[in-house]
Amino acid sequence: MAGYTKSVERLQAEFLKLPGIGARSAERLAFHILKATEEEALALAEAIREVKANVRPCARCFNLAEGELCAVCSDPRRDTDVICVVEQPKDVLSLEDTGAYNGLYHVLMGQIVPLEGTGPEDLTIDALLQRVGSGQVREVIMATNPTVAGDATALYIIDQLKPFTNVTVTRLARGLPAGGSIELASKSILSDAIAERRKL
Amino acid sequence: MAGYTKSVERLQAEFLKLPGIGARSAERLAFHILKATEEEALALAEAIREVKANVRPCARCFNLAEGELCAVCSDPRRDTDVICVVEQPKDVLSLEDTGAYNGLYHVLMGQIVPLEGTGPEDLTIDALLQRVGSGQVREVIMATNPTVAGDATALYIIDQLKPFTNVTVTRLARGLPAGGSIELASKSILSDAIAERRKL
Repeated sequence: MAGYTKSVERLQAEFLKLPGIGARSAERLAFHILKATEEEALALAEAIREVKANVRPCARCFNLAEGELCAVCSDPRRDTDVICVVEQPKDVLSLEDTGAYNGLYHVLMGQIVPLEGTGPEDLTIDALLQRVGSGQVREVIMATNPTVAGDATALYIIDQLKPFTNVTVTRLARGLPAGGSIELASKSILSDAIAERRKL
Repeated sequence: MAGYTKSVERLQAEFLKLPGIGARSAERLAFHILKATEEEALALAEAIREVKANVRPCARCFNLAEGELCAVCSDPRRDTDVICVVEQPKDVLSLEDTGAYNGLYHVLMGQIVPLEGTGPEDLTIDALLQRVGSGQVREVIMATNPTVAGDATALYIIDQLKPFTNVTVTRLARGLPAGGSIELASKSILSDAIAERRKL
């Protein structure tokens, strides 16, 4: 007998494929499912099925949606003349948590990373240009990550947006992170903070 | 918008119920499922369903089984006159991995821990006594954990086995763990090693 029963081994193997789950954790999770009531265990299986069946990209902004449009795009109170461009749906949630933004979003679904074979055509940039070209948009806020790949992605998109002369293109401010310390800030953070200093 | 879509939040909540999975991990797992292909994600859901549908305790020894009997009990090459008593199915696997044992098992499905409300009646002790009483059994090896609760469970069972005078009751040896060091061994380990020293 090399191991547990076939079903248990298969479940362990499936858990092992998940990110951050090693052999020990996979075993513990499989045994948790074994010990759990039928109802509890099947609730997880059903939740996985439902996500795959129901969740799709928003037809307008590519944020996660259960219907045609996501919760932001289908909210009539949002400003439709501002689009905030982010890399992934998680970033939408982080920005929404601030309560500081009331416009729409556009989720790129990645970054331009040529070394990994991800080019502009793999992102939702064409759809963004179409939205901006529709004429309603007044401002596009670049909110890609403050990293080399995020900046490269933003630069490419800013270049593509140049023909839309009546659209203001902005990007999120850079500087010292609130709650941080100058002592621990990296060179790049301090350089940004100096370069983008504000008049008081 | 408070969070992701309902399906995604439900999936996160289900992952959060698993042992060792915190809020961050649950979110990462949910996003992994979102990004995974339909086939990959449903393979996990199906594996959970299969385990709950197929895996049950072995009718003889309570080890995990997919049919009536587990892999050990249904193997005709095993010695049927020795029973090794373990606390849980995982222990069967650990002992099988050694290749040093060719008898049968009996899985107690827990320990006697009165403070947690687990008494002898919650374990499979009655079934063990019936097996021993069937007359084929020559030796019962106690392989509960070398802990207070494991020892208490073993003592209770040894007491119950006293009427079977033709059955030898043994327990796993205690002493220094192979690969360990005397310097790092605890008092209990060293006491066991002295008390159970072997003549060379």
